[in-house]
Amino acid sequence: LSYLRQTLSLVTNPTLLSNDEIARTFPTDILEQAKFILHKIKGVGAYTDSQGSAFSRQSIAKFIERRDKIGQVDFKNVFLSNGASGSISMVLDALLFSEKDTVMIPIPQYPLYSALLTLKGATAVGYFFESKDDRWHLDSQILETAILDSLKVGKKPKAIVVINPGNPIGQLLSYEQMVDIVHFCEKYGLAILADEVYQENVYDPASEFHSFRKVVLQLQSSVPVASLNSLSKGFVGECGLRGGYAEFLNWDPEVMTVINKLASIFLCSNTVAQVALHLMVSPPLPGSPSFQLYDSEKQQILGALSRKAKLLYLSLNKMSNIQCNRIEGAMYAFPEVFLSPSACQAASALGIPPDQLYCLEALERTGIVLVPGSGFGQKAGTHHFRITNLLSEEAMQEVMGEFAGFNEEFHNRYS
Amino acid sequence: LSYLRQTLSLVTNPTLLSNDEIARTFPTDILEQAKFILHKIKGVGAYTDSQGSAFSRQSIAKFIERRDKIGQVDFKNVFLSNGASGSISMVLDALLFSEKDTVMIPIPQYPLYSALLTLKGATAVGYFFESKDDRWHLDSQILETAILDSLKVGKKPKAIVVINPGNPIGQLLSYEQMVDIVHFCEKYGLAILADEVYQENVYDPASEFHSFRKVVLQLQSSVPVASLNSLSKGFVGECGLRGGYAEFLNWDPEVMTVINKLASIFLCSNTVAQVALHLMVSPPLPGSPSFQLYDSEKQQILGALSRKAKLLYLSLNKMSNIQCNRIEGAMYAFPEVFLSPSACQAASALGIPPDQLYCLEALERTGIVLVPGSGFGQKAGTHHFRITNLLSEEAMQEVMGEFAGFNEEFHNRYS
Repeated sequence: LSYLRQTLSLVTNPTLLSNDEIARTFPTDILEQAKFILHKIKGVGAYTDSQGSAFSRQSIAKFIERRDKIGQVDFKNVFLSNGASGSISMVLDALLFSEKDTVMIPIPQYPLYSALLTLKGATAVGYFFESKDDRWHLDSQILETAILDSLKVGKKPKAIVVINPGNPIGQLLSYEQMVDIVHFCEKYGLAILADEVYQENVYDPASEFHSFRKVVLQLQSSVPVASLNSLSKGFVGECGLRGGYAEFLNWDPEVMTVINKLASIFLCSNTVAQVALHLMVSPPLPGSPSFQLYDSEKQQILGALSRKAKLLYLSLNKMSNIQCNRIEGAMYAFPEVFLSPSACQAASALGIPPDQLYCLEALERTGIVLVPGSGFGQKAGTHHFRITNLLSEEAMQEVMGEFAGFNEEFHNRYS
Repeated sequence: LSYLRQTLSLVTNPTLLSNDEIARTFPTDILEQAKFILHKIKGVGAYTDSQGSAFSRQSIAKFIERRDKIGQVDFKNVFLSNGASGSISMVLDALLFSEKDTVMIPIPQYPLYSALLTLKGATAVGYFFESKDDRWHLDSQILETAILDSLKVGKKPKAIVVINPGNPIGQLLSYEQMVDIVHFCEKYGLAILADEVYQENVYDPASEFHSFRKVVLQLQSSVPVASLNSLSKGFVGECGLRGGYAEFLNWDPEVMTVINKLASIFLCSNTVAQVALHLMVSPPLPGSPSFQLYDSEKQQILGALSRKAKLLYLSLNKMSNIQCNRIEGAMYAFPEVFLSPSACQAASALGIPPDQLYCLEALERTGIVLVPGSGFGQKAGTHHFRITNLLSEEAMQEVMGEFAGFNEEFHNRYS
């Protein structure tokens, strides 16, 4: 986004502001925004509060209030981090103390969660999304089955991770599903780690993103929620800057004390991302000089992602032995590929999972990078892969053609 | 540094480069540098390799070769991180597996180490620097005593942390002391975590910084060394950008595999700091358009730090009941303050350590922030505080006057 990058250049090099010839090439609202930021933080060179600069956390608090239209957000409950990953790691550190500690995570899941749980010496209880009627399905019964299995072996989960919209499966939870999850958490005393980094990436015009914070407040529930968001997704897409935040609702003050202490170990998150987070949640207002360009860039990015999600869904379902659910949100499809016994034997001979054979051959024969479903977890005996809708629209058309050719050839070869 | 900030503004907002009117206000070597970086990484918006961008790691490898004038550095052994803290955390994760695992750390120490060891469920074995003849002293006997005490309770350290120049005590190890440490590590099979983030901050004209990498190579030793460096110190001082690196020498390939895996959990370190690290180790060459300003800024910063270190040392030693060792490097003095029984009783009545009482009163009465020695560790029965040489030169003169007044008044009050 030009708005973001223009402001960052002024904030990293404030001498540009004092050169009239240069300053006049920038929209006036961007000059004002840069001066406001520099007034607040006196430059990006110094450490900030370990939680992050107050001005950026205040902007985020206001953004959450505007988005959810319920309750107030105290910026003291907002923590900035290097990517949302930094927040996730911190929350898990605050919750996990021994090998008996466990957290519920979705399967398929984003591998950060299993990796961090392993690193911290804890374990995961998986709850499996089911493929049903062209969508990824989750209900209370699935959650109950998972937690009862865990309780049977003496492990009581402390929290549940919900990725919504989902990575890698691209599902979007309905309001009713979220209500069920909150009631489930009340019943078993779980906190919710709401990984909502794809909240701007919703493709089904009939659906809407709801935050767990909003649902919990509307239910007047006391379930603790850590809401995660990021610079890396949405239409901002600044993954390289590594900016994210966690906002805490209903957490025990003692846990918050631990979280404060944990945040201070690494001094603070990087200041450029702190500034970028403020910019992400403080877009130009209609009528301001930079609004038109900002809005057209935003609509272009979101429109293209939506068209490509549809193209991905339609193209995949036309291919033999592939079934792809609707892509409701996020940036991925996670189709099932039906592999023949002969493909499974060939993989077994190589000592790799069958979906890995499929993905490796796709890479070798076409250059297309897919991620095998086994990297995210999947029901035993099923095979999936993850594919993104991040290519350009022109490239996507061509790539899907090549991929269809590969898929046909693969299944013929192993028929 | 103007060189660094000017380049960062072009890299974060490349449209500045395509506007001739703006571009002509930048020195030509900075334009070239920005184009080179953008050619290498295609912008700061995307994830890089988990280890960091190759171009930045290659620049760091060349810098280390130029600095040490011995051996070659493979950029594949250089890992970029969000501050040196990120690297330290990663190395400790690779080394520590159980509660029995332990690492030797200096006392007084930078609290990051004790905090991370506690977080990771491991323990620290402290080796105590001794105050002797106006300097902080360390020898093999001190290390032997510390490790033998640890072995007696069944804990074999895996590594030793050496902060050189030191935080908080400002010592600089001699070449001979470093040789002794390497031999000690050979004897007990320890790796060295060489925290060398203050390598540019050396104030004694008769002394010189030596890297542990150089000493190990010159001794033809096989002791593993992780060399840490940072954007935050030296004369760059860009703490807010959160950039650091670790360079690995002599490490077991299996440990390197674990380190690679750990680096990948958080995707990558922030790209702005990756670019800044490249700039830090690739300064303008003499004769280039931006050299003169760069060099004058560098000399000004280092000269002022050196003068302020001297001022700090002289002022503190003029005060009653304070003894300060020579400040050989880093950015701190760690003087001993001799507190009366009456001061100790007053602290005890408040339930705080005596040095904390001293520091709190200094804060309340003068606004000067000192850090109590008990935060870093000190020999039982002694009391210290940490004070920095980071104020401006004018402010420093005035502040030392105020501080001397407070110190006099404190000791009189508790005499």
